[in-house]
Amino acid sequence: MEKIKIVAIGGGTGLSCLLRGLKKYNYDITAVVNVADDGGSSGKLRTELGILPPGDIRNCLVALSEEESLMSELFKYRFPVKCSLNGHSFGNLFLTAMSAVTGSFDNAVTHCGQVLAVKGRVLPVTLSSISLEAELDSGKKVKGEQKVSKVKEKIKKVYLNPDFSQTTPEVISAFKQADVVIIGPGSLYTSIIVNLLIGGIVSAIKRSKAYKIYIGNIMTQPGETCDYKLSDHIVAIENNSYENILDCVVVNNKTLPDKLLKKYKRYGAYQVENDKISIKTVKANLIGDELYVRHDGQKLARVLSEIISLHIKK
Amino acid sequence: MEKIKIVAIGGGTGLSCLLRGLKKYNYDITAVVNVADDGGSSGKLRTELGILPPGDIRNCLVALSEEESLMSELFKYRFPVKCSLNGHSFGNLFLTAMSAVTGSFDNAVTHCGQVLAVKGRVLPVTLSSISLEAELDSGKKVKGEQKVSKVKEKIKKVYLNPDFSQTTPEVISAFKQADVVIIGPGSLYTSIIVNLLIGGIVSAIKRSKAYKIYIGNIMTQPGETCDYKLSDHIVAIENNSYENILDCVVVNNKTLPDKLLKKYKRYGAYQVENDKISIKTVKANLIGDELYVRHDGQKLARVLSEIISLHIKK
Repeated sequence: MEKIKIVAIGGGTGLSCLLRGLKKYNYDITAVVNVADDGGSSGKLRTELGILPPGDIRNCLVALSEEESLMSELFKYRFPVKCSLNGHSFGNLFLTAMSAVTGSFDNAVTHCGQVLAVKGRVLPVTLSSISLEAELDSGKKVKGEQKVSKVKEKIKKVYLNPDFSQTTPEVISAFKQADVVIIGPGSLYTSIIVNLLIGGIVSAIKRSKAYKIYIGNIMTQPGETCDYKLSDHIVAIENNSYENILDCVVVNNKTLPDKLLKKYKRYGAYQVENDKISIKTVKANLIGDELYVRHDGQKLARVLSEIISLHIKK
Repeated sequence: MEKIKIVAIGGGTGLSCLLRGLKKYNYDITAVVNVADDGGSSGKLRTELGILPPGDIRNCLVALSEEESLMSELFKYRFPVKCSLNGHSFGNLFLTAMSAVTGSFDNAVTHCGQVLAVKGRVLPVTLSSISLEAELDSGKKVKGEQKVSKVKEKIKKVYLNPDFSQTTPEVISAFKQADVVIIGPGSLYTSIIVNLLIGGIVSAIKRSKAYKIYIGNIMTQPGETCDYKLSDHIVAIENNSYENILDCVVVNNKTLPDKLLKKYKRYGAYQVENDKISIKTVKANLIGDELYVRHDGQKLARVLSEIISLHIKK
């Protein structure tokens, strides 16, 4: 029996969390991952090794691996500084060696699944070196993913610099073959919409016959989605793609404990209000028992698998 | 349905070739690999990185990998000498990082299958640093695997130095659970018998209820098995283990082309004569179409799978 093909697009911890849950099911998974410059160590790596920021890509590979804790330890392992390997992390050496052997960083990432015990593929959304910029309601402009995620006023629009970046044939082909496309969970502008701005992505999603699911965020993010209700998230996505892009929205309906709400309030983050939207919405308890508010990958994957089995027959 | 468990014990190109064929079948494969000092680069590695000679182990991992050519290229890849990674091969960096993360080289090798896309396990036959030595018919003694493989006179007996090395609990457990044990193909003394000399191996094989198959060599090896017929190989194995250790012997029955025979004759190597033995013997065309005489891994695995399906019901 042919496996159901899922393309999950996003970035950050949200995408890793989703993959961690999905890998336990017998799906054919492709993760399409944000590679916008997020400053810090990834920025350095781009200069030092001439490769795309591997942070989110590495995290997705680890999330999809059969023995996640061992793979995670291995990828994080740094050779002792005093030896000639000079503190490099194994994960970066792995991607560097794979890039050399396969001819490019893109090939390296695409072929990781052939040498690593991972249950799916991870594709960078583009091979271009891109940076996210935002225009705020006041007209002020902000440059760089890190800064965009920390603005205090409402974002009017986001765009890429340079703005002519294109996605890859592998990503386009993945969308073409997909039975299900999952968007999110993740930071609305810096993990989700940043991908939709890449040339070729929206048209690939539009042409795809896949069932399209958006996973709503649990919390607002100060600076990025202050006061955003569920409907505001959907509008932002539609404004950066096309109307009715989504067939289904999955949201958490469990109210967070007061203690956690208070903790997040201090940072200006609140539980997203699930206001009325015109798209089919599946509500479920999707949160874990952690000290931070995160989607519980297992709960999320269970709900998704039920939705998928209702809509996709193979 | 539970998979049939196979333990293949040996070393060198013979074991890799067998694994390359077997991995296409739905078996649970464990390779138990010779780690005697073979001088050269492996000897250096032992000094430099404090780990067992990884050559044969690496080759077995590559042979068991899902995408052998890519894994092989990756493991062989050397970082540029001018950079701080200083010409290290990726394969060795991988085993070094895994050793650090898992606490030992043995753990590293045992857990490789959890991070690499390989279809089986590879276990070093011992964690001890050992060297193979031989006493010849003339009474002369020869030290080191490389030298033993090049002696000109008949070998009287081989032994290990130090002679108190022990195998590991993982290897013992693998034999205990095995449905089938495959010995060879490989250099009789330096890849096969060297393993039988390790403390605990012969008793583990004896206690095992597995069906035991020996794969005979196609050619004699000058210096190691000059003039040896099939029966001489069996006698040498029995002398270093116990009588009737084997349930079945698989040999090639295809005569080599004259051109190839002439080429090998120049090096003192001849096609092994399949003389009469008292053990059940399966004869088949097992050779490939190469310029060298090698077992064809696919043909070998096909014959083995037929034997196994006749004797093991799961």
